[in-house]
Amino acid sequence: MCVGTVAFDKIETPFGKTDKILGGAATYIALSASYFKNIDIGIVSVIGDDFPQTYLDIFDRYGINTEGLKTIEGGKTFFWSGLYHNDMNTRDTLDTQLNVLENFNPVVPDQYTDADIVMLGNLHPAVQLSVIDQVKQPKLIILDTMNFWMDTTYDLLLDVIAKVDVITINDEEARQLSGEYSLVKAARKINEMGPNYVVIKKGEHGALLFFNNEMFFAPALPLEEVFDPTGAGDTFAGGFAGYLTQTKDISFKNMKRAIIHGSNLASFCVEKFGTEKMLELEEDEILERLSNFEALTQFEINLS
Amino acid sequence: MCVGTVAFDKIETPFGKTDKILGGAATYIALSASYFKNIDIGIVSVIGDDFPQTYLDIFDRYGINTEGLKTIEGGKTFFWSGLYHNDMNTRDTLDTQLNVLENFNPVVPDQYTDADIVMLGNLHPAVQLSVIDQVKQPKLIILDTMNFWMDTTYDLLLDVIAKVDVITINDEEARQLSGEYSLVKAARKINEMGPNYVVIKKGEHGALLFFNNEMFFAPALPLEEVFDPTGAGDTFAGGFAGYLTQTKDISFKNMKRAIIHGSNLASFCVEKFGTEKMLELEEDEILERLSNFEALTQFEINLS
Repeated sequence: MCVGTVAFDKIETPFGKTDKILGGAATYIALSASYFKNIDIGIVSVIGDDFPQTYLDIFDRYGINTEGLKTIEGGKTFFWSGLYHNDMNTRDTLDTQLNVLENFNPVVPDQYTDADIVMLGNLHPAVQLSVIDQVKQPKLIILDTMNFWMDTTYDLLLDVIAKVDVITINDEEARQLSGEYSLVKAARKINEMGPNYVVIKKGEHGALLFFNNEMFFAPALPLEEVFDPTGAGDTFAGGFAGYLTQTKDISFKNMKRAIIHGSNLASFCVEKFGTEKMLELEEDEILERLSNFEALTQFEINLS
Repeated sequence: MCVGTVAFDKIETPFGKTDKILGGAATYIALSASYFKNIDIGIVSVIGDDFPQTYLDIFDRYGINTEGLKTIEGGKTFFWSGLYHNDMNTRDTLDTQLNVLENFNPVVPDQYTDADIVMLGNLHPAVQLSVIDQVKQPKLIILDTMNFWMDTTYDLLLDVIAKVDVITINDEEARQLSGEYSLVKAARKINEMGPNYVVIKKGEHGALLFFNNEMFFAPALPLEEVFDPTGAGDTFAGGFAGYLTQTKDISFKNMKRAIIHGSNLASFCVEKFGTEKMLELEEDEILERLSNFEALTQFEINLS
């Protein structure tokens, strides 16, 4: 089960621009997780009645349960517009219209209150807290958040962080949250705030997983072309959560695999605009690229 | 055998500053390579008579042959001074005094003209070309260079690039040299300029090795503290070359291992100022950290 935004995005990159297209953290998380077979995916979010049926049909087609997706009659769906710069690592937010998100009071459908894995996508910490309060005994709560909430609702965000098992956060945000430049030190401080597992996302430079005194690193697959980084972090988180849900194994060893699966799916996301690539992915492409990840990182060294 | 600068460095980082200390590409390369047993390491370089005996003793202690290290009577040793910024990824050159390097005419000692592995450390491309002309039939020529030569002696640098087997270059330089932002595309273009193997160094973000259509990635070990990045790239290259020299195996598979060994040694170099850490490294520290690299990157995934 995941909570997060369902949105209209308008994106401009050096390669072109889009009209208002399907977006939002929960959308990317759920689509990514949907590539793991035989798992139950429900999204908790809110939309306006301007949200087209064709988009709802997409959720349906990918087996994503939308019982927890509330439609506000007369309301408008959350809208975000952003512009990526040449290096694709920096972006400007051109417009944010919270709309129905402003008074979002999440209601977790009964059937999801006993979910094993709960993914809290980027959203107001109050909403994330409310979801935590509504679920019974999840085995794992994963939190994604961003610097905006550190700047605006820091204390509430700390309350959420204290209650989760895994946090995924990017490198700059980890530095901001911890006050430490070294990511090793940053992870240790964030670990002390609550989460047993700290995942630091470094975009094109991969992702680090910290657990106790252990570290694991998954590179991002070097790509010929990055068209649009929108949703990559959410796709990563969705793949991570989806794999753990499917395998029902939350050991550190399995989390490493989950990080690789998340990185793998994220590598597809950025190849086209918005959700486009995630809506046309084939099973064999995914497997082929997983073996590329293996070739990219695995080596044999004689340590005797 | 390696050619490169032997220098005085004066370094300032957010953690402190040094007086004039031992530095230079050839120094770091040779020290790093010296951790591989039973290989012959000779440096070809030039110093002034201001270069202290204590530094020459260091080369001696690490089994580095200095027959090719020419002393210019009345000359002054190359001097570089740099200031690192808070993120340690950017630096300003405060002072460069070429001194004896200005008219350096490298002479490869007879005993090194039949070296198997030749490492061309960062230096004027004309010097690198002269060394290539003096060696007979090396199995592998490795080139390290930097943007300065792209800006000032581009055509000559291209001549060198055309004659080497491996090039090591950082990400920004790879982009500048190729005109491509994507490192995958950049590596392909550089590959077409000559080298079969393209190594792109990304500093704290690791290193990529490209060969035909294959890629290998070695992360940099995430560290608690980076004191001084000076010499890290040269230490990486020296470890890479040293391992290949020791193992006498220049297959892609073995180059992967060489990249890991280079990354491993570079991770020590940055922990103290200048060459300090490289002069106190113990065998068991090296092995322990190699196993950290393994733990950091190795995973098992079922691709069936």
